[in-house]
Amino acid sequence: MKGAQYLLLPGPTPIPQRVARAMDRPMINHRGPVFKEILEEVIDGVKKIYRTKEHLLIYPASGTGGLEAAVVNFISPGDKVLAISIGVFGDRFAEIAAQFGAQVEKMDFAWGTGADPEQVKARIEQDKNGEIKAVLITHNETSTGAFNDIKSIREALGDHPALFMVDAVSGLAAIELRMDEWGLDVVISGSQKAFMIPPGLSFMAFNERALKIQQKNQNNKYYWDVSLGLQYLAKGQTAVTPPISLYYGLQEALRMMLEEGLDNILTRHAKYREMVRVSLNAMGLQLFTEDGCASSAVTSVLAPAGIGSNGIRKYMLEEFNIILAGGQQSLDNVIFRLGHLGYVRELDLISVLAALEITLLKFGHSLELGVGVKKAQEILQNAKAD
Amino acid sequence: MKGAQYLLLPGPTPIPQRVARAMDRPMINHRGPVFKEILEEVIDGVKKIYRTKEHLLIYPASGTGGLEAAVVNFISPGDKVLAISIGVFGDRFAEIAAQFGAQVEKMDFAWGTGADPEQVKARIEQDKNGEIKAVLITHNETSTGAFNDIKSIREALGDHPALFMVDAVSGLAAIELRMDEWGLDVVISGSQKAFMIPPGLSFMAFNERALKIQQKNQNNKYYWDVSLGLQYLAKGQTAVTPPISLYYGLQEALRMMLEEGLDNILTRHAKYREMVRVSLNAMGLQLFTEDGCASSAVTSVLAPAGIGSNGIRKYMLEEFNIILAGGQQSLDNVIFRLGHLGYVRELDLISVLAALEITLLKFGHSLELGVGVKKAQEILQNAKAD
Repeated sequence: MKGAQYLLLPGPTPIPQRVARAMDRPMINHRGPVFKEILEEVIDGVKKIYRTKEHLLIYPASGTGGLEAAVVNFISPGDKVLAISIGVFGDRFAEIAAQFGAQVEKMDFAWGTGADPEQVKARIEQDKNGEIKAVLITHNETSTGAFNDIKSIREALGDHPALFMVDAVSGLAAIELRMDEWGLDVVISGSQKAFMIPPGLSFMAFNERALKIQQKNQNNKYYWDVSLGLQYLAKGQTAVTPPISLYYGLQEALRMMLEEGLDNILTRHAKYREMVRVSLNAMGLQLFTEDGCASSAVTSVLAPAGIGSNGIRKYMLEEFNIILAGGQQSLDNVIFRLGHLGYVRELDLISVLAALEITLLKFGHSLELGVGVKKAQEILQNAKAD
Repeated sequence: MKGAQYLLLPGPTPIPQRVARAMDRPMINHRGPVFKEILEEVIDGVKKIYRTKEHLLIYPASGTGGLEAAVVNFISPGDKVLAISIGVFGDRFAEIAAQFGAQVEKMDFAWGTGADPEQVKARIEQDKNGEIKAVLITHNETSTGAFNDIKSIREALGDHPALFMVDAVSGLAAIELRMDEWGLDVVISGSQKAFMIPPGLSFMAFNERALKIQQKNQNNKYYWDVSLGLQYLAKGQTAVTPPISLYYGLQEALRMMLEEGLDNILTRHAKYREMVRVSLNAMGLQLFTEDGCASSAVTSVLAPAGIGSNGIRKYMLEEFNIILAGGQQSLDNVIFRLGHLGYVRELDLISVLAALEITLLKFGHSLELGVGVKKAQEILQNAKAD
């Protein structure tokens, strides 16, 4: 039998049973002392994952809602914005800023690569008069499996006054990010990725510098208004009714994350990346990203010549109950994406790689059965020996 | 022992075990065929509760998010808007419209009453040139326990071209509302009320007339953009990642609601209102609303002279583990509110009324123990005999 589904998406990710049970608790008064304690614990916990002591708000929203919150609070209509994009979600951040009246200058890098800090530096150095008010960037680009070197790009900005705003929805807690140490002004994330809970919460952290700019912001806003959020947070409440069951889940997931330790979580995701990449290489498949910018959250791989990636995904689903992500836009039927983000077991990856080998042979791709699986096993073996 | 909590709020409301179990299912691909089936089933089901065949979108948001979605899609900056308010949530709808640049004319009625259709009619008839672009109104005013006679107020507008936009967040499925038959243009609701699921989803229905106006709308928008939502819905998807666990819950809750039948649900809520009001009267308490505009979702009652309502609530919580809502703003410590909305059992109301009698005696209010409970029992007895 095939049994329960293997969910290898870059979000939503599998929910641990501890989290599912926590979410099952009865509703409570969201303006009472019990919820206040939960709110304070989760705000504190999410800040630890962000490695920040700055402000943090939680919205009832998808990750895209968090991006909109960042735009409407920290960018005023007419502001010049430099939007660095390496894929679909970089484009989306730019599009939201444009929708709200920013003058958006796109800086596009080839899909499958990370942005080049040198090119960013050169562009910023041209901006002698400080016309650029904000730089938008994606931490992990879910659509391609590449990540941006946020630390180097922040350094490339030097002391330029633009706010540095990072979409870390799918990257946080899978790939290193140090908000305060690196000097990131605004960082957005979401619940359905490394946080191991269902979609429905978006997180936004921002520092004092961003808050000062927010106070002069010209956008119309209510739901996303940071001032309103902070005002309620000061009394241990949320401005609007919070998704209580997701807060229960977040509280439990954060406890699990802090038990495992953030450094260990990052190491684990890096190990998953290695297992998958080395194994896919051994199967004779071509990876879509170079090693230097390869994401620890999701791996993109080109389907072998003449074999569409959607056929592979369909077979994997029907025969093994494995869900892989397809390619988006121009990459549809060209790549498939293997998410290894959040509550994924190392041995599940072995299973999925084993099934992929069988699938590839079925579609006429030439390989020796077990060759990729063995490579992944070796990495696991070495990790256990450490 | 006190045991599990009695949650008598006008939202969040208790979650049935069937719904809790449904929400416990594993995550799935939100761009796959299984989620598409769920989405189509819940859109269809929520439309039945709205009694509409028009458009409906579901947002990952609180009810306030739905109000903002209505404002940014259907009101353009500078539009003249008539905002009818009978309490806190009427004020909030007006405030959101003002935030987004509408010229808001407030029409306030005393808290605890419903809006007077004659006065609305008189004001609308003055607007010979059709300057008013939208009329905003609350279906059930959670803060006071009064409801507006939406049908009569819609009739009072006659053939004036203003869009009639109804905040039905806490009223839908507790108090009658017939979107299509009554000619309502935009109706907003939320998940944590009569829909019996946790907070985190907001529903917005709108007709063709509203959609035509939306297409010329001048607001900046992305997350709430109806055009984007409809485009994705046409292919069985949502524009942004949906809160999957809440969709599971909504699917199950709608099945329960359709099994019970909408007419039966409305009758049940009306019976709850009668039980509570007759019983409170018998205890010598003064109700905050007249019978004609008394809500079937929540009942507000004045604390007896010299006894603050917050002391009563505190005692009920500590001694009986019963959560009642307090008064908001000027009504703080003046009234308390007893929610009887959603998955509330009739016998739970008996229990709560019994505890309230004991509490009132404790605080020195004079009454004969059992007098209110017996009145509620009689209504139950008669309902069983029907």
